[in-house]
Amino acid sequence: MLYSWRMAKRATEGLTERLAAGDRRALARVISLVEREDPAAKEVLAAIYPRTGEAVTVGFTGPPGVGKSSIIAKLIRLYREEGKRVGVVSVDPSSPFSKGAILGDRIRLSDHFLDSGVFIRSMGSRGHLGGLAGGSRLAALAMEAAGFDVVLYETVGVGQGEVEVASAADTVVLALQPGSGDAVQALKAGVMEIADVFCVNKADDPRAKDQKRQVRQMLEIGNELSPNPWTPPIVLTRGDTGEGVDELKREIERHREYLKESGEFEKRRRESLKSFVLLWATSRLQKEMREHLERQDEGTMERVYRRELDPISASEKIYREV
Amino acid sequence: MLYSWRMAKRATEGLTERLAAGDRRALARVISLVEREDPAAKEVLAAIYPRTGEAVTVGFTGPPGVGKSSIIAKLIRLYREEGKRVGVVSVDPSSPFSKGAILGDRIRLSDHFLDSGVFIRSMGSRGHLGGLAGGSRLAALAMEAAGFDVVLYETVGVGQGEVEVASAADTVVLALQPGSGDAVQALKAGVMEIADVFCVNKADDPRAKDQKRQVRQMLEIGNELSPNPWTPPIVLTRGDTGEGVDELKREIERHREYLKESGEFEKRRRESLKSFVLLWATSRLQKEMREHLERQDEGTMERVYRRELDPISASEKIYREV
Repeated sequence: MLYSWRMAKRATEGLTERLAAGDRRALARVISLVEREDPAAKEVLAAIYPRTGEAVTVGFTGPPGVGKSSIIAKLIRLYREEGKRVGVVSVDPSSPFSKGAILGDRIRLSDHFLDSGVFIRSMGSRGHLGGLAGGSRLAALAMEAAGFDVVLYETVGVGQGEVEVASAADTVVLALQPGSGDAVQALKAGVMEIADVFCVNKADDPRAKDQKRQVRQMLEIGNELSPNPWTPPIVLTRGDTGEGVDELKREIERHREYLKESGEFEKRRRESLKSFVLLWATSRLQKEMREHLERQDEGTMERVYRRELDPISASEKIYREV
Repeated sequence: MLYSWRMAKRATEGLTERLAAGDRRALARVISLVEREDPAAKEVLAAIYPRTGEAVTVGFTGPPGVGKSSIIAKLIRLYREEGKRVGVVSVDPSSPFSKGAILGDRIRLSDHFLDSGVFIRSMGSRGHLGGLAGGSRLAALAMEAAGFDVVLYETVGVGQGEVEVASAADTVVLALQPGSGDAVQALKAGVMEIADVFCVNKADDPRAKDQKRQVRQMLEIGNELSPNPWTPPIVLTRGDTGEGVDELKREIERHREYLKESGEFEKRRRESLKSFVLLWATSRLQKEMREHLERQDEGTMERVYRRELDPISASEKIYREV
């Protein structure tokens, strides 16, 4: 690796200590190191990791426009009333098109911008090592080490990427809105299976109860296919007035108690850490293979383009060489 | 590897020849080998690969309910009128919930079930090596080798997975419907950037023109951010009557001509083959690492659970060991 350990050491000197003391600027700095894939991030992570694992982590996912940010803003207020410090890792797809929408979402969270007990960070790029799931996981660990009691992962959209990010959390909340094809889309993307708590927002919409019924039916079918001892509750909320958000918070807590009592908590955390380790190793290898392919092995790919060598044999060749 | 080459040889004897002769049962058999991850699939691929590369490949993506299957059914009819043989690889997410919806989609394609010039195959499981993108790519190659002139990739949903599958094609069509948040969702999922041709279905909906305008605006913003010499056309279609599908077909052909004239065709195919090779190698390694972790290295993970070793150091350890 082409970087000086001494430089990395210098750059992070004192950073871990300041982070552990809850210094917001140190936290912002560490997350930036993660985003830039700075080798120093690895040092910091090794140092802070033992201080993590105590926070309550909740993943929020759901299609755009559902009102996740409003619900989260209200939920943060409830946690703050209990004196808890809340970190939010907000994950948005990499599209350069989407910046406008992200800003819009952020503005709704701005009530909390001046509160030192709240830290909100967007992660945008898909490019970095470990992908969005890897980066957001490290950001969340940094927040835990900085003493945040609750860490929320917010993801926009329902797709495999969002599933990966949200599954890092102990409890996954899926937010839907009435009268949309959202439930069907979520179901197709495999998000239904990972949701522990459902939230139907815009409860004032006359179709809200229908949406709730539809979700319950899908859950029943799902439960017949693969029985689940936990029945995900479906909470009706209003992000604008905050109605139902207290119930949502109680259901999140009830799910956590269920996890702990059933022994699922340990199992889930272990599985999630294992996935993270594998994700990281795989994505590092992928990077190395791509570099190898570009630096030394254009010849192999040339033969694939000319249809002289099939892609699977080529991949096994590269696999052996790296 | 724990399998007998002789057995693999025997199982595939004659299969390649029958496939090359356009035998539908041989084609179905080869795709099943791919889905089962049978080692014989590798042998077959190596044998058929030199016969591939001539087909026109088109990726169709878009949210569920847009009417992709109806459009594809009409498009197939147009290709059939020209005497072209058409293969469809239909990719659905792995959720056990979604079987019903898949069947519904298939029924709309049933006009062509008895036509020997049309071959439709669904790929469901995310589990196999190379993921859905890998499996569907191999199925498409098998169709090409069996003499299909056009291969369509149909994906349901707009997410990173669908993007991966559709990007294997030379031309990507994104189907949207009027009055939905689909465009925004597609944009957030990074699908807007990979679409070469847009199709607004349900053109009889009064909001269709608005949807078209909205897409055009987003494309203009996107073009300012990263200029594209190809301006994706936006075609209004009606899957029920077939209106506009001939125009859609012409735009697909016009895009192909653009690719060839600009030299983009070669570049795109090379990039796509390279991604496939990397995907395959990575997913094989991922499998091996997972097995390694489960067989021999529970100790490393145990230290991660106990917060004695951080996940990145653990992943580097495993990475070195495999």
